[in-house]
Amino acid sequence: MLYNKVVEIHRGGRMESSHFGHAAVVNANGELLHYIGDKNRVTYARSSVKPIQALPIVETGAADYYNLQDKDLALFCSSHSSEEQHTSRVSQLLKRAGLSEGNLQCGSHIPFSDDVYRSLIQQKQEPTPLYSNCSGKHTGMLLTAKYLGESLDDYYKQEHPVQQRILNAMAGAADYPKGKIAIGLDGCGVPVFGLPLHKLAHTFARLARPEVFDEKRADAVGRITVAMTSHPEMVAGTNRFCTDFMNVGGGRFFAKLGAESVYCIGDKQTGLGIAVKIEDGDYKRALYPFVMEILVQLNVLTALQVQSLEKYYQPKIRNARNEIIGEIIPSFVLEKSQ
Amino acid sequence: MLYNKVVEIHRGGRMESSHFGHAAVVNANGELLHYIGDKNRVTYARSSVKPIQALPIVETGAADYYNLQDKDLALFCSSHSSEEQHTSRVSQLLKRAGLSEGNLQCGSHIPFSDDVYRSLIQQKQEPTPLYSNCSGKHTGMLLTAKYLGESLDDYYKQEHPVQQRILNAMAGAADYPKGKIAIGLDGCGVPVFGLPLHKLAHTFARLARPEVFDEKRADAVGRITVAMTSHPEMVAGTNRFCTDFMNVGGGRFFAKLGAESVYCIGDKQTGLGIAVKIEDGDYKRALYPFVMEILVQLNVLTALQVQSLEKYYQPKIRNARNEIIGEIIPSFVLEKSQ
Repeated sequence: MLYNKVVEIHRGGRMESSHFGHAAVVNANGELLHYIGDKNRVTYARSSVKPIQALPIVETGAADYYNLQDKDLALFCSSHSSEEQHTSRVSQLLKRAGLSEGNLQCGSHIPFSDDVYRSLIQQKQEPTPLYSNCSGKHTGMLLTAKYLGESLDDYYKQEHPVQQRILNAMAGAADYPKGKIAIGLDGCGVPVFGLPLHKLAHTFARLARPEVFDEKRADAVGRITVAMTSHPEMVAGTNRFCTDFMNVGGGRFFAKLGAESVYCIGDKQTGLGIAVKIEDGDYKRALYPFVMEILVQLNVLTALQVQSLEKYYQPKIRNARNEIIGEIIPSFVLEKSQ
Repeated sequence: MLYNKVVEIHRGGRMESSHFGHAAVVNANGELLHYIGDKNRVTYARSSVKPIQALPIVETGAADYYNLQDKDLALFCSSHSSEEQHTSRVSQLLKRAGLSEGNLQCGSHIPFSDDVYRSLIQQKQEPTPLYSNCSGKHTGMLLTAKYLGESLDDYYKQEHPVQQRILNAMAGAADYPKGKIAIGLDGCGVPVFGLPLHKLAHTFARLARPEVFDEKRADAVGRITVAMTSHPEMVAGTNRFCTDFMNVGGGRFFAKLGAESVYCIGDKQTGLGIAVKIEDGDYKRALYPFVMEILVQLNVLTALQVQSLEKYYQPKIRNARNEIIGEIIPSFVLEKSQ
């Protein structure tokens, strides 16, 4: 595997720590245009492919049957911050299908939003599955199973038709043999998919050019990506990169974070797909400077857009006394593919 | 710089992420015995050298003047979890010198202990400087300044005699020219020291063989390291590696975590010093498996000791459903120095 240092953490004018990363930039024909690190790295996409995991909700007819709105579709693609706008909508959607939080099999964790976490503690409540960042995705899975009359208690298992449809959607979206996709278990219990990084980039390039698919899938892809860019606040939350980036993009980019520091972007204007992985899995400080620097080097953002996203790009590091003691600096140049 | 992958994060039987690291194992003569990665990496020691930052408290006579106990000296070396045993002792020590929490200039942060954080939120309190993991270190600095009649409001600044004494102690302990030590600002506002990794290891080897110092320093070093190994609970806290490792070591090892994933160990039995850095700064999952594997390869732990520390060594990864979905695996062999 090839390793490239992509983000440096500086303190006192000296590099204190650094992060290695990989990226691939591919068009809808599958042509690799730029890369850094190992473009072939088999990478679990994790939640970055939630937009693909949401396709069957539309394709089976469940979305129309339940009269789902764009906000709902965006929520199915989310790793949300458990804010009221997310949890209340999940509750409503479950109720609409005669289900409840008790049907969610995603487990629970400390919410991404510290405000939400603090509020729960003050109310002496523990986070429930509703507060899982994946509760939207699981609700989409449940609604599809309910609509099709499939079993509800095991919808998260790999052999369940819900997950089999998703695996087929993943293979179809990626134009990649189902049997070659590596499978693991996600934080919320559903299968995760491992593909070479350049195939993940290709997948997002194809989502940005839905005409490469048959009419039914093209329609579903279009609805999902428009839902994401129309309601970025449902895909992540307050002060989250996914939300702010898609807002700033004004409909051009659909983008999604995955755990262990994966990031995938589709650019509807150029038809490019971008897939990114920080080798050490850190998504708290290295990922967004890496992603931003790629976007800048590809020249797909205006100066004003870069400025709007400045806090994600080359942030200063402050200490507990609120003194600036260092900075985060992207430190790579994308390779041009021959 | 040389990079070596030292810890792999697996999911579904496949590597999902990985961490690079560096280590040096040196004896009190400064001879490098083993290493991995870049032994010359200039590395901010951060809190790993709190035992050295505590030396002037003893050497100036402040420790005797205030009748400080081993528990107090251990607390000066701590990155504590803000448990009641830590914060109440910090309060008492400040009071003993006629000072209060208001004198602490360390700032505040979310406590390492989630239990403490939750308890603060439930009481509708914000973390104060008392809850900084560095409040013990700052209290030691304040007591020294008070004892010597030095100014109190700027004790944290590089030019203050408190910090100058500490810089001298660092250079002396390391047997390294003061002018070659890189200086940055720590999370709590005091100067941090950058030295080649093998020099940090050498420093801890010297601390493990205090007879290399003059009598006064040898006495201070002995008191500090005995304080740490006698009261490991004061150096970190419940379910923390520093505390559990020193407890299991039964007086043999003194050891300290530093931010950005630094770890330093002195082994009183063999006289070895070990210094470690995870390149990406992660101290939540990669550092302790790395440290444990080094100790195992050096054959300085009994099988029973390894078993007692198993949860830090090759932990399984569980998801929000409490299913085992992967594991953390050290993946390197220490190089023998020629």
